[in-house]
Order: sequence, then structure tokens, then C-alpha cells
Amino acid sequence: MSKGKNVVVLMGGGPTVVINNSLRAIVEACSAYSERFGTVYGAWHGVEGLLREELLNLSAQPKEEIALLRTTPAAGAIGTTRYRLVHEEDLRRIIEVLKAHKIGYFFGIGGNDTQEVCLKVAEAAAAANYELIVVGVPKTIDNDLGDPELRLVDHTPGYGSVARYWAWTLQCLEEENRGSAPADPVLVVQAMGRRIGFIPAASRLADPEREFPLLILFAEAPLPLEEVADHVADLVRRKGRAIVVVSEGFPVGELGARTDSFGHAAFSSAKLSAAQVLATYLNEKGLPSRGLARWQVPGTEQRDAILYTSPVDLKEAYAVGCVAVELAVKGISRVMVTIRRAEESVYRPEFGTVALSEVAGKDRPFPRGWIASSQVDVTDEFIRYARPLLGEDLVSVPIVDGRLRFARLKPIFAEKLLPSYTPAAYRGRR
Amino acid sequence: MSKGKNVVVLMGGGPTVVINNSLRAIVEACSAYSERFGTVYGAWHGVEGLLREELLNLSAQPKEEIALLRTTPAAGAIGTTRYRLVHEEDLRRIIEVLKAHKIGYFFGIGGNDTQEVCLKVAEAAAAANYELIVVGVPKTIDNDLGDPELRLVDHTPGYGSVARYWAWTLQCLEEENRGSAPADPVLVVQAMGRRIGFIPAASRLADPEREFPLLILFAEAPLPLEEVADHVADLVRRKGRAIVVVSEGFPVGELGARTDSFGHAAFSSAKLSAAQVLATYLNEKGLPSRGLARWQVPGTEQRDAILYTSPVDLKEAYAVGCVAVELAVKGISRVMVTIRRAEESVYRPEFGTVALSEVAGKDRPFPRGWIASSQVDVTDEFIRYARPLLGEDLVSVPIVDGRLRFARLKPIFAEKLLPSYTPAAYRGRR
Repeated sequence: MSKGKNVVVLMGGGPTVVINNSLRAIVEACSAYSERFGTVYGAWHGVEGLLREELLNLSAQPKEEIALLRTTPAAGAIGTTRYRLVHEEDLRRIIEVLKAHKIGYFFGIGGNDTQEVCLKVAEAAAAANYELIVVGVPKTIDNDLGDPELRLVDHTPGYGSVARYWAWTLQCLEEENRGSAPADPVLVVQAMGRRIGFIPAASRLADPEREFPLLILFAEAPLPLEEVADHVADLVRRKGRAIVVVSEGFPVGELGARTDSFGHAAFSSAKLSAAQVLATYLNEKGLPSRGLARWQVPGTEQRDAILYTSPVDLKEAYAVGCVAVELAVKGISRVMVTIRRAEESVYRPEFGTVALSEVAGKDRPFPRGWIASSQVDVTDEFIRYARPLLGEDLVSVPIVDGRLRFARLKPIFAEKLLPSYTPAAYRGRR
Repeated sequence: MSKGKNVVVLMGGGPTVVINNSLRAIVEACSAYSERFGTVYGAWHGVEGLLREELLNLSAQPKEEIALLRTTPAAGAIGTTRYRLVHEEDLRRIIEVLKAHKIGYFFGIGGNDTQEVCLKVAEAAAAANYELIVVGVPKTIDNDLGDPELRLVDHTPGYGSVARYWAWTLQCLEEENRGSAPADPVLVVQAMGRRIGFIPAASRLADPEREFPLLILFAEAPLPLEEVADHVADLVRRKGRAIVVVSEGFPVGELGARTDSFGHAAFSSAKLSAAQVLATYLNEKGLPSRGLARWQVPGTEQRDAILYTSPVDLKEAYAVGCVAVELAVKGISRVMVTIRRAEESVYRPEFGTVALSEVAGKDRPFPRGWIASSQVDVTDEFIRYARPLLGEDLVSVPIVDGRLRFARLKPIFAEKLLPSYTPAAYRGRR
């Protein structure tokens, strides 16, 4: 048995196609320091698994399955959660669980909400005089984690792949729309990103020369539907067709959206969506051509369709996991790993750190200067920023018997040592 | 100059990811018989291009661009249409255009509506004593072209790739749903296919062992929403979560759907969709767990996301184009090329023909015996049928400067020789 303290990794929030490559990095890097680290556990469904003492033993998994995490999308391997850690009792429980399982290292992979979890756990450990190294690992498709100036955090793992999803999907939709314009002249497609424009913006990467009849509608740049219809009609008159990428947060009126535990609008569970409201408006108003506006609302495939993985993103997701372990080895705590951009002519990432307190719980906006003066496009500065994140090659995903071969972890859990516990937010409720 | 008569190719209906590989096959095979065939034209947006005398010269394109049609999805290269050919005057005009451009060979790539166009043009040519070889090339993602027994037509090009889209997408969504179940226990995803179940059925190929908490709702197997909710609640109780694949044609009440020129419901332009009506119903009724049902409605990416191309489908799409040209060389007309399945232990396609009159304008249903007795799954017989169509490998799509490199045809059109013409259905209307 190793003498080192044990390790826990948790995920929080929505997943990405590369999140498991950060997880894999932590498992593999810890195993390279076998004197320093004991068993690596995955908290089953993030904070909820910590509270319930459900700790998946990652060190006991077959190495091949850990290796396959590289191209296994989303959070099915160890689970994620949107549980909001606000009760003191929950924090006390977490410290008890960490103590019981001799956890000395805590890695949280996630966005600003998850970095806040990391910070709270670090503070609770300090208050309890419990020695714990806490390092945050960035992850978000929304790219809204970090500073508004993009100096501390250039981008986050997960974004490059969703950018590739949108760049390549728009290329395919352009072929579709150009081919099918007599019947379907207008195609309205909805993009994720809540109210922050990095994801819809990426659709422009399909067409940096601006040859497509493309409008991008940002939540940050509201327009009355009449004005959107005028833009569309103008494109239909000039080019015979139009493609509209609309942010899920673009204001089109009441959608019947519910909110998640963090108070974020859960657009994917709303009664209506921006894309369909807009398409219906266009069809009822009438297009200056034959045919109809059609709409489509891709959902979680934006963050789990593994075929769109950017090799740059995949590599960086692994790197940030490794850097997190190196920091822990050096005893550095209460920081999140960051990706900055070297000031060179060719894109090169540099890895650094930022204090958890600087990123915890804070959304960063899409830079206003990157929305074009037309309000329905991005500027070239955004294209220069985002283009390198797409990478060049297809990522090879193992295929066995006609299906994608994803990692299959075994349900090897740590023995429970404490009385069972119901997370505070779940008491007295279903 | 070649002495052979000229050739026209047209597309009709919705595209597929492999439709252009049939087009490429026709161009390349015709060029191999340079004594027999003259110039190959693409009718620009199908029948509409024929009527308007808009004929794209495919023989004059760079060979590399024709080669790139292999992995260029959808119908942007020569365009498609849903124009309905019902006016005698339109047919007379088509014969005039064919005569003016010395067209002796007519290839129509499409589904049953397009095969009907082929038949009508063949009949009009015969009535006008105009010598014309007409060969249909099958294409449809819906797999609803052919005989209900699947003996004459085992499947059509386009289906294998949409089947792969659903198999692999469901695998990714399973990772998503398993990982995110505490917040999003129920994921409702809508599949194309109008009222015919081949597409939603393919989602089962993700999980032939039936380990996923998957329900498939077929338009052919209507269930009251209460009963669907019971199925979902049962899965949520037993497995903590559920994934529902719902056909766009599954009856859930009024959607505000419009119809296209053929009278088919245009679900993608409807005010509501089956997936969201179902998700809203589940959320209002309440799940037996925390969290919400979320919905997503992928649209045309099902038929244009090139990364999901099945290599089996791609190869067969090319083959049917080549077979069509061989038939034309032999002077065989008024037939459609078919794919049958050799009666062997290992999948092997055989190419044959069927009279156009046997397939024109006829939808074939999804075999009732392939819907499981539960009504919310397929039988193993369907899995055995569809599995070989997925193929094994990723298709390599050229990537240049971070983007997919699709074919870019030059706008080289045949000189117009006739007075201009407005398609009959478009007169007196916008």
C-alpha cells in the first residue's frame, strides 16, 4: 500500500466531450507519483457523491478503461450534478467524509459554480484544521469562466470542441440550406450558451469569408422580432435564403423556462424555444419567397457528440489535469489551473493558475467588442481568437462492432465508513 | 466533341449525407463511356432547373471537385426541390428543354416522389416520341422507398448513415444522461422519419443488449401521453433516469404543422414538436424524482452531418449511381436501381432493378413485426437487419484550415436556348 494520502476528483455542471480526458489525466498523473498519492476516487455525481460517501475507486479500474476515457464524452463515467452547496451542515459532512477516507487532495473539474464548491471545501477544511490541497480544473463549453479581459483565462477546455461542432455543423447546414432553399429557404438553429455568446459566435468559424447568408442572434444584442424578420427578408431577397443561428438566451418573449438549483434558466426544459418562436413568427409574417422557415434545436449533442472533438481541446483538457496534479505535488492549493495564450504569432497555450476566489461563482461575458456593429455577426478579432481552438484533424474514436467504444468503469466503490446522510437540500422533499 | 447524347441528373426531396456520391458516380461513370455520353448536366434544384432551363455543366468541373462530392453532404452542389410535377404544360416544357439540349439520358436521384417524376418524364417523352432513357437512383433517409416486404428494395442509400447518426448519438446521449441524471433525469429526443419508424428504430442500434433506459415512441404505435408518462416513471423509479426517442410523427396533439407541396406534414416548420409537448407534459405531471425532463430536436443534421457517414452507405450510394449508368448503356429504361441483400450469413448487397411504376409515389411502412410487443422498442429482427448498414470505420473527410473541405462547383451553366418559363405551379403566386 502506498503511504500517500488519497485523492478525490469531482465534476460539476454540464459536461463536455473532453471532460473525461481531464479526469484521465488526474488518474494517470497521480499514478505516476505513487509515493505521494494513494487511491484516486471519483465522487459519484460530484458533490452528491461526497455527501453520500459514494466514492468510485478509479485506481482499481483496468488501465485500458482509464485510457478510453480520452474519447468518452460527457460525465457518465463518474457523474456530475447541479447540487448547490450552501448548507453548513453539508460542508461539515464533506470534511467528515474526506477525513474518513484519508483524502488529502481534492480536484474539482468544472465551471465557476464548481470552482465555488472547491473554494468552499477548501475554506471548510481550513476552518476544521484539516489539511487538504484543493485544485480546480477548468471545464465549460460556455467559455464563461475567467476574467472578462481573457488575460487570466484565455479559454476553457470544452469550448474548442463545441466551437468545432458549430463550425462544422454550419458548414453542413449551408450545404443543406443551399440545396433545399426552394422549399426551406430559412433555417433557424438554436445554440447553447445560456446568455453568453461564445457558442453562437463560433458558427462564424464555418465561414470566415462571410459567403453564407448567416445571421447570428446574441442574447447580448437583443433585437425586436420585426427587425430580425427584416434582416431575414433582406437576405432572402438578395440571396434566396438565410441561416439564422440564435442563442437559446436571445429574448423572444416568454418561453416558460424553469430554473435550475443555481437560478440559471433551464432553456432545455422550457415549453418553447427561441428558435421555434422566431421561425413561427417568420412563417406567420410571411417570407418574401416561397417555402417556409424551419427550425431545429440541437441539445446536449453540442457538448457530447464525440466526433466533433477538437484535438487542441482534447490535448489541453489532458494538460490541465496533469498541471493540477503537479501543483498538488508542490503543495499549491486554492488555485484553478488556467490556459493562457502565449504572445506569439502561432497559437500556443501556456498553463498557469488563478486564485479560486477570482473565478468562483463569476460568469464572464462575451466581449462586447466582438459583436459586430450590425449586431448579427462577430468581428474578425473573434475569428482570430477562436480559430486555433478548432484544431486540424479528426480525433480517432475507437469503433468496435459498429459502435463507439467508450470507457466502461466497474462499480468498485469505497466501503462506506460513516452513517448514511441525506444532502441538506434534499430533506423533507421528494 | 463526343457524339453521344447528353445526360441530365436531378435530385428531389430531402438530401442525405451520401446523395452526392451517387451524383459523383454518374458523372464519373458517364465519363468512362465517352463515346456513349456527351455532357453531363445537373438540373439546378431538380425539376425547377429543368423547367427553367438551368443546367449546371458537371462535365466542365475540375475533376478534384467532382471527387470531393464523395464527402460533401446534402444537396448544395446541384440543388433539390419539392416542386410537384402535376401540370401537363410543365411536362411538355421539360421535353422541350431535353430536346433543346440533346438530352438522351435522364437520371433522377430521390425517393418515391422523385421516382414518380422519373416515370412521368419517361411517359411524356414516349408520348412525344422522344427517345429518352430514364433510370431512377434510390435515395432516402426515411427508407420508405420500395416494397413493404423489403424483397425488391432492402434499403435505400442515405438510411445507413442516418442509422449511424442515431446509433452513435444515442451512445453519446446515454453518457450524458447517465452523468447528468440528478438534474436532468429524463432526456426526450426527437427523430425524423415523418410517420415511418425506420429512423427512430435505429436508436436501438446504440444498445442492442438493452442496457440503456431507452423508450422508442413510434408514429405507428400511438400511446396516450399518460401511458408514456407511466413508462417513463417506471424507468425513473427503477433506473433513476430515462431516454425517450420520439418520432416527429408520434401523435401528441395539435402541433400547428404546415404541409409541403406533396401534402406531407412539414414537422420542422410546425409551431410545436412532439418532443417538447411530451417533455412539458412530463414536467407538468411531475417526475418521480428530482430534476426535469429536457428535450432536444435535432433537425437536418440527421441527414447532413457528414461525420456520421456510414462507409457501407457511402459505397452503396456510389454503386447505385454506377449501376444506373450501366443500365443506360444497355438501353434499359423506366427502372430504378435497387439494393437487395444476398441470402448469405455475411451482409452483401446485390444490385438489381425494379420498374419505376412499382415504386413511384408509394410509401412503404416500417414492418409492424419489427415493433416489439411493448410498443416502445424494436425486435431483434430489426437489429439484425439494420446493424450491417452502420459499417465499421469512420469515413475520412478532408479538412483544410480547420474546416471541412467540401466540393465547390463552378457556376458553369448551359446556354439557354429557349424562351424563359415560369413553372406552372408558381404562376399568379409570389
